[in-house]
Amino acid sequence: MIYLDYAATTPMLDEVIDEMMPYMKERYGNPSSIHKFGRQANNALQLARKKISSLINGKGVVVFTSGATEANNLALKGYANSMKRKGNHIITSSIEHEAILEPCRELEKNGFDVTYLPVDKYGIIDLNALENSISDKTILISIMFANNEVGSVQPVKEISEIAYKHDIVFHTDAVQAAGKIPVDVQSLGIDMITLSAHKMYGPKGVGALCICNDLEIEPVMHGGGQENEIRSGTQNVAGIVGMGKAAELAMQHMDDYASHVKQLRDALIDSVSSKIKYSKLNGHPVQRLPNNAHFTFLGVNGEDLIIKLDENGIESSTGSACSVQKQKASHVLKAMGLNHEEVTGSLRLTLGIQNTVEEIDATVNALVEIVGELRKVSPYGLKYNVT
Amino acid sequence: MIYLDYAATTPMLDEVIDEMMPYMKERYGNPSSIHKFGRQANNALQLARKKISSLINGKGVVVFTSGATEANNLALKGYANSMKRKGNHIITSSIEHEAILEPCRELEKNGFDVTYLPVDKYGIIDLNALENSISDKTILISIMFANNEVGSVQPVKEISEIAYKHDIVFHTDAVQAAGKIPVDVQSLGIDMITLSAHKMYGPKGVGALCICNDLEIEPVMHGGGQENEIRSGTQNVAGIVGMGKAAELAMQHMDDYASHVKQLRDALIDSVSSKIKYSKLNGHPVQRLPNNAHFTFLGVNGEDLIIKLDENGIESSTGSACSVQKQKASHVLKAMGLNHEEVTGSLRLTLGIQNTVEEIDATVNALVEIVGELRKVSPYGLKYNVT
Repeated sequence: MIYLDYAATTPMLDEVIDEMMPYMKERYGNPSSIHKFGRQANNALQLARKKISSLINGKGVVVFTSGATEANNLALKGYANSMKRKGNHIITSSIEHEAILEPCRELEKNGFDVTYLPVDKYGIIDLNALENSISDKTILISIMFANNEVGSVQPVKEISEIAYKHDIVFHTDAVQAAGKIPVDVQSLGIDMITLSAHKMYGPKGVGALCICNDLEIEPVMHGGGQENEIRSGTQNVAGIVGMGKAAELAMQHMDDYASHVKQLRDALIDSVSSKIKYSKLNGHPVQRLPNNAHFTFLGVNGEDLIIKLDENGIESSTGSACSVQKQKASHVLKAMGLNHEEVTGSLRLTLGIQNTVEEIDATVNALVEIVGELRKVSPYGLKYNVT
Repeated sequence: MIYLDYAATTPMLDEVIDEMMPYMKERYGNPSSIHKFGRQANNALQLARKKISSLINGKGVVVFTSGATEANNLALKGYANSMKRKGNHIITSSIEHEAILEPCRELEKNGFDVTYLPVDKYGIIDLNALENSISDKTILISIMFANNEVGSVQPVKEISEIAYKHDIVFHTDAVQAAGKIPVDVQSLGIDMITLSAHKMYGPKGVGALCICNDLEIEPVMHGGGQENEIRSGTQNVAGIVGMGKAAELAMQHMDDYASHVKQLRDALIDSVSSKIKYSKLNGHPVQRLPNNAHFTFLGVNGEDLIIKLDENGIESSTGSACSVQKQKASHVLKAMGLNHEEVTGSLRLTLGIQNTVEEIDATVNALVEIVGELRKVSPYGLKYNVT
């Protein structure tokens, strides 16, 4: 099997599993217990917090959650609800993950106004539109660090400068960026950042919201008051330890990881572009994640393409795994101005550190063949049926 | 080390870890991905759902969450918010876990009325008070199956009959009961039930809300729409597989497990009662979980006691792990009418399937010695300083 869906989820590294095992076996204490066994578990949480802080040069509080979705819900609802006396306006972008868009829609039902900023054809947000949308009611700007579908990296520093100038809190969903490219919350001026373990070779079911400044956050889940009274529930100790290790490894090996996947990815893009006519790379040509390749193959249905690739042992995606089951056309590609044919003909290939040159070659060969086949049988593929 | 804090958390069984490992290693697909690898992960979720349903003879939907706290939040807020046009009154008990009480307090801030039912000296709720508190605004009754501190098992069937008679939905937090005593949601008439994996020899960071009837539940976390649009976020596949296996084992071995811990627990209670004067068993003498022993030792501070036990390698608790760090006096014991001295002198010993006769003997011996010592130095222990 050739796995090219690393943006959906990643395999855990052996070192991550090794680090988790003692907390799955003999060190099973509840971190809230005051006996030695509980303190041992709690110490493990503190160490994981430090490792995660290091990855992003963080300060402040690391709140462990069940994943990025919960962290995003906590950032948006938690901060908005605690600030509603100050203002009710939130700015985000039209290409965010559903885990940002859906909480925003929920906040709209509860009296908040949300601006969804447009993006250019490369999926980069419009900074003028951002600045123009700010009002004296604006309390929060939430813009993703890098897009999960097309990999475009946003101008985070410029966004934070605008936020800072207007005294507005800036949150970023950095799920796809953290561990792949440098994310320094202090130099970038980020107030809150969302991370996910399973996108960086750690376990599923763990994420974090790092709150870098002294912000008031209302809990979304209420209970025993764990995680600094911000997020209740017995912590997933083994998972958190795994996330800490994944963050540590990502920091240590970031350059190697990035150059390995970038080299493969560039080769993939070059081969596809030269070998498959009427194909097009989506997203920013340069300002993009090192592991993301996102194509449109005109005259092809992307879903047929991933099914055929799957039959050939190649695992890929049309876009966000969280959305594909609903078979909705990508809101990201639509926001970038792609037409219906371009949207439906899209394929996301996201690479990881385990991929090899041979896998990329095999994938290109399979793509050439499958795209050709599909164009032959596609109702509107005939015009692209070139040899 | 002698671990007697199984109500706080349990070690994972080897069979549970073995079942999880493939999903931590090679089967790492995102269950929302439509390729084979994703479908493999999704199939694992479906199998786990079946196993959990079997444990409770469930019907309807199993919604996986990050744990019992999230499941309780979802049950209470999710149902209350979807029903607020119908009524705004909720009935619960004064001895619930914080993961019920805190969401209730939150709902009170948002226009709901909550009745906290009293309990008798054994920690059993008053059924007359329940029936009398019902009004035409009552939409939900949430009463725990068995108490986490003193182990008292509530009259669940009688509660559900009252709920049914008045056409009110009945939710129960069965975290401490499931896997230890029979929990049959159909014969007991339970509409929603909360389960936790790490209380039944499964992993931390996984729980479930089983929604047995066709109820409208508003999500608490919004995003990609996983878990039947009720709970968003990439599922913790390995953890869920572990929870499924834990449920399966709990069902297969329930009688053995229960008789083993009950035998040890009864011996513990007998020995403590006969060997330590001015000690008292809290909770119901019969209608209690098979693994729970909860004592008051007059003239002793419970926290000193668990520290001394800890020094002797015995891990115990004064009450809920989620609350002890806050050093608040137990709301459960207060609701049962215990006075300040009785509350502060309390110790919870909760047993598990790994405990042995030798461990119980050693614990009793340590208790005799430590309680004696502490009474000698306690300001109000002198009157109990008997040999």
